[in-house]
Amino acid sequence: MLYLVHMVVDIPKDMPADEAAKLKEVEKNYSQDLQRDGRWSELWRVVGQYANYSVFDVDGNAELQEILSNLPLFPYMTITVTPLAPHPSRI
Amino acid sequence: MLYLVHMVVDIPKDMPADEAAKLKEVEKNYSQDLQRDGRWSELWRVVGQYANYSVFDVDGNAELQEILSNLPLFPYMTITVTPLAPHPSRI
Amino acid sequence: MLYLVHMVVDIPKDMPADEAAKLKEVEKNYSQDLQRDGRWSELWRVVGQYANYSVFDVDGNAELQEILSNLPLFPYMTITVTPLAPHPSRI
Amino acid sequence: MLYLVHMVVDIPKDMPADEAAKLKEVEKNYSQDLQRDGRWSELWRVVGQYANYSVFDVDGNAELQEILSNLPLFPYMTITVTPLAPHPSRI
Amino acid sequence: MLYLVHMVVDIPKDMPADEAAKLKEVEKNYSQDLQRDGRWSELWRVVGQYANYSVFDVDGNAELQEILSNLPLFPYMTITVTPLAPHPSRI
Amino acid sequence: MLYLVHMVVDIPKDMPADEAAKLKEVEKNYSQDLQRDGRWSELWRVVGQYANYSVFDVDGNAELQEILSNLPLFPYMTITVTPLAPHPSRI
Amino acid sequence: MLYLVHMVVDIPKDMPADEAAKLKEVEKNYSQDLQRDGRWSELWRVVGQYANYSVFDVDGNAELQEILSNLPLFPYMTITVTPLAPHPSRI
Amino acid sequence: MLYLVHMVVDIPKDMPADEAAKLKEVEKNYSQDLQRDGRWSELWRVVGQYANYSVFDVDGNAELQEILSNLPLFPYMTITVTPLAPHPSRI
Amino acid sequence: MLYLVHMVVDIPKDMPADEAAKLKEVEKNYSQDLQRDGRWSELWRVVGQYANYSVFDVDGNAELQEILSNLPLFPYMTITVTPLAPHPSRI
Amino acid sequence: MLYLVHMVVDIPKDMPADEAAKLKEVEKNYSQDLQRDGRWSELWRVVGQYANYSVFDVDGNAELQEILSNLPLFPYMTITVTPLAPHPSRI
Repeated sequence: MLYLVHMVVDIPKDMPADEAAKLKEVEKNYSQDLQRDGRWSELWRVVGQYANYSVFDVDGNAELQEILSNLPLFPYMTITVTPLAPHPSRI
Repeated sequence: MLYLVHMVVDIPKDMPADEAAKLKEVEKNYSQDLQRDGRWSELWRVVGQYANYSVFDVDGNAELQEILSNLPLFPYMTITVTPLAPHPSRI
Repeated sequence: MLYLVHMVVDIPKDMPADEAAKLKEVEKNYSQDLQRDGRWSELWRVVGQYANYSVFDVDGNAELQEILSNLPLFPYMTITVTPLAPHPSRI
Repeated sequence: MLYLVHMVVDIPKDMPADEAAKLKEVEKNYSQDLQRDGRWSELWRVVGQYANYSVFDVDGNAELQEILSNLPLFPYMTITVTPLAPHPSRI
Repeated sequence: MLYLVHMVVDIPKDMPADEAAKLKEVEKNYSQDLQRDGRWSELWRVVGQYANYSVFDVDGNAELQEILSNLPLFPYMTITVTPLAPHPSRI
Repeated sequence: MLYLVHMVVDIPKDMPADEAAKLKEVEKNYSQDLQRDGRWSELWRVVGQYANYSVFDVDGNAELQEILSNLPLFPYMTITVTPLAPHPSRI
Repeated sequence: MLYLVHMVVDIPKDMPADEAAKLKEVEKNYSQDLQRDGRWSELWRVVGQYANYSVFDVDGNAELQEILSNLPLFPYMTITVTPLAPHPSRI
Repeated sequence: MLYLVHMVVDIPKDMPADEAAKLKEVEKNYSQDLQRDGRWSELWRVVGQYANYSVFDVDGNAELQEILSNLPLFPYMTITVTPLAPHPSRI
Repeated sequence: MLYLVHMVVDIPKDMPADEAAKLKEVEKNYSQDLQRDGRWSELWRVVGQYANYSVFDVDGNAELQEILSNLPLFPYMTITVTPLAPHPSRI
Repeated sequence: MLYLVHMVVDIPKDMPADEAAKLKEVEKNYSQDLQRDGRWSELWRVVGQYANYSVFDVDGNAELQEILSNLPLFPYMTITVTPLAPHPSRI
C-alpha cells in the first residue's frame, strides 16, 4: 500500500554542529535500511528546500506511523501523509 | 530530470456526459502514450479526490510545459509542479 | 485500518429539487449499507454545515478509494482523508 | 453530546528529557482516567504527526473546556474543537 | 450553553428579486421567533459585509444544528460555530 | 458602539511562574474594572483554547485602541477587531 | 473616526455591458457625493487589480455600515474594514 | 522602475472558441507592442499553469496601472504586483 | 507616487526594556523627519495591534526601499507594500 | 533552463553582529561569482522586505539544487522555486 509523504526538516539553529551531524548520520542509516527492504521506495529532494517527497510501500497506516515516528529527525520534522491508490489510467 | 506534479480535475457539472466521457478517454490515451515512452513515470490516485500525483521524467522545464499544456483535461485542471533533485541519502 | 474522512457537500443550486432528493436518497442507502457491514463505522454531522466527519474501517487505501469514489454525491463533495493509527495512550 | 477534538502537541525542544517524560506520563494517566469514565470516547494518532483526533462525550461546552484546559500538555497544544450532531443517515 | 456563530450570506446573483425578497422575509421571521424565545440571544451585522455574528443560547450541539440547518437562507450561507464557555475573569 | 474582539494569549514558556501569575492577576483586575463600567460588555472563553471572544461597547476606535493597548497581557496577545453594526432583523 | 476599507469588485461576466456601465456610473456618483461631503476621504486604485483602498471619516460603525451597504456595487464587492486610531508618532 | 507581475488567466469555459481565440490574438499583439518598446521587459510561462511571470520597466505605479488595466484579458486575470528595487549584491 | 504600507512590529520579548525604549525613540524621530518632509504622508495605528498602515509619497520603488530598509525597527517588522494609482472616480 | 526563485532571509536576532556581517559578505561573493558566470541571471530586492526574487539559468533541477543548498545563508532562508518555460507571446 502506497503513501506519498512530505517531510520538511527544521533543525534548531542552536544545536551543536557535531550533534546535528551525528543525528543526520543516524537518520541516513535508518532511511537506507528502509530503502533496502523496499518500504521506503522513493526519496527525492525538493529543490531549494530542506525537504523531501517520499513514497512508502507498507502494510498500512500503523506500519507507516511506526516508521515515521521513529525517524531520528522526527522531532524536527513537519510531515504530511497522502494515501495513494492505483490510478485507473496507469498502465 | 524529475518533477512531482499534482493535478486536481474539476470538470464543469454542465458538460454533457458523453462529451466528458470522450474527453476522459482521450486523456487516458494521451497519458498512456507518455507512460509507455517513459516520460510519465509514476501516476497515483489521491484517495478520496478527483486528483492525482504524478512523476515526470523529462529533459526539462520546456518539455514538461509542452506535455502538461497539451493534456486534454488541462483547461479543467489545477496543476502544481515541484522540481525534484537526487536525495543524498538515496541508495 | 481506520481513516478519518471529512466530507463537505455542495449540490449545485440549479439542480432540480426532485433530482437532488433522489440523489440524497441513493446516497443514504449507499451509506447505510456500508454502515451495516461495518466499514463506515462512524458518521457525525458537523454543526452548522452541510458536512460530516466519518470514520472508515477498511482494508486499506484502495478499498477506501473504491468506497469514496462511488459515493453518489462524490461529484459534489470536497473530501479530506486522514490516516489514523492506534494511540499509545488508548486503553 | 459529542465533540471532535484535534490536538497538536509541540513540546519545547529545550525541555529536559525527564521533565518531558514525566509530563507525558501524567498526561497519559489523565487521558486514561477520562477514557475509563467514558468522556474521552475515542483517541486516534494522526499518522506521521505528534497529533491526535479525539471524540469527547460530555455534558456540554463548559465540561469540555474544563477537561481540555486541565490537560497536563495543554500549554504545549494547539487544539481545535468541532461540535458534532447526530447525522440523519446514521443507522 | 452558548455558541458564537458567524454567518456569511451569498445569495445567487440570478435569483429573481421577488424570490430573494420573500426568502429574506421568511428568514427574518424565523430569526425573530428565535430571538423572542431567547435562543438567538445576540445578532450583529459585520460592518461592510453581508454577514453577521450571532450568539445562541441552546441546550447543546443537537439543538443548535436543528436551528441552523433550518435557516431559510441556510443553503446560501457559510457558517462557522465556536463553542463558548464561561470565562474565569467574567464578573 | 460595539466591536467583537478576539484575543489569543501566548505567554512565553520561559516566563517565571510567579511573574505569569501576577501578570494574569493584573489582567483580571483590569478586565473586571472595564466590565463594571460597562465598556467590556461580554467576555467568553473559546473552548479548548487560551483565547476569548469579547464585546466592547465604547465611544469609537480611539477608545478601543486605548483600552486594548493597555491590556497587561497585550504584548503576548494576537488581537483581531471586528466592527459591529445593528442588524436589521434584531428585535 | 477613520477606517481603512479594501474593496475588491467582481462584476459577473454575463452582466450586459450597458447595465454594467450604468451601474458603474451610479457608483461613481455615489462615491463622489461622499467624497465631496468629506466622509470618503481617500480613494486609491490598487495597481493591477479591480480593487481600491479607501479611507472613510465617519461618526462610527453604524454610519460606515450604512454607507458601504448602499454602494451600488455592494453585491459584487468583497469588503474588508480596518478600524484606525491616531498613531502616537504622528506629527 | 521595475515590477514583477504575476498573471493568472481564467477564461470562462462558456466563451465561444472563436471569441476566445480573437481575444488571445489581441492580447498577444498588445503584449508584443509593449515588449518592443521595452516596457514589458520579461515574459515567462509558469510551467503547468495558464499563468505568467512578467517584469515591467515603467515610469511608476500610474503607468503600470494604465498598462495592466488595458490588457485585453484583464477581466479574466488575477494579477499580483511586486515592486522591485536594485539589490545591493547585484553586479 | 503613492504606496500603502502595512507594518507589523514584533520586538523580541527578551530585549532589555531600555534598549527597546531607545529603539522606539529613534524610530519615532526617523518617522517624524519623513513626515515633515512629506514623504511619509499618512500614519495610522491599526486598532488592537502593534501595527500601522502608512502612505508614502516618494519618487518610486528605489526610494521607498531606501526608506523602509533604514527603519530602526526594520529587523523586527513584517512589511507589505501595495502600489497605488489614481482612482478614476477620485474628485 | 530558467527558474524564478523567491528567497526570504531570516537571520536569528541573537547572531553576533560580526558573524552576521561575515556571513553576508560570503553570501555576496558567492552570489556575484554565480552572476558573473551567467547562472544567477537576475537579482532584485523585494521592496520593504529582506527578500529577493532571482532568475537562475542552469542545466536543470540538480544544478539549481546544488547552487541553492550551498548558499551561505541557506539555513536562514525560506526558498520557493518556480520552473519557467518560454512564453508563446515572447518576441
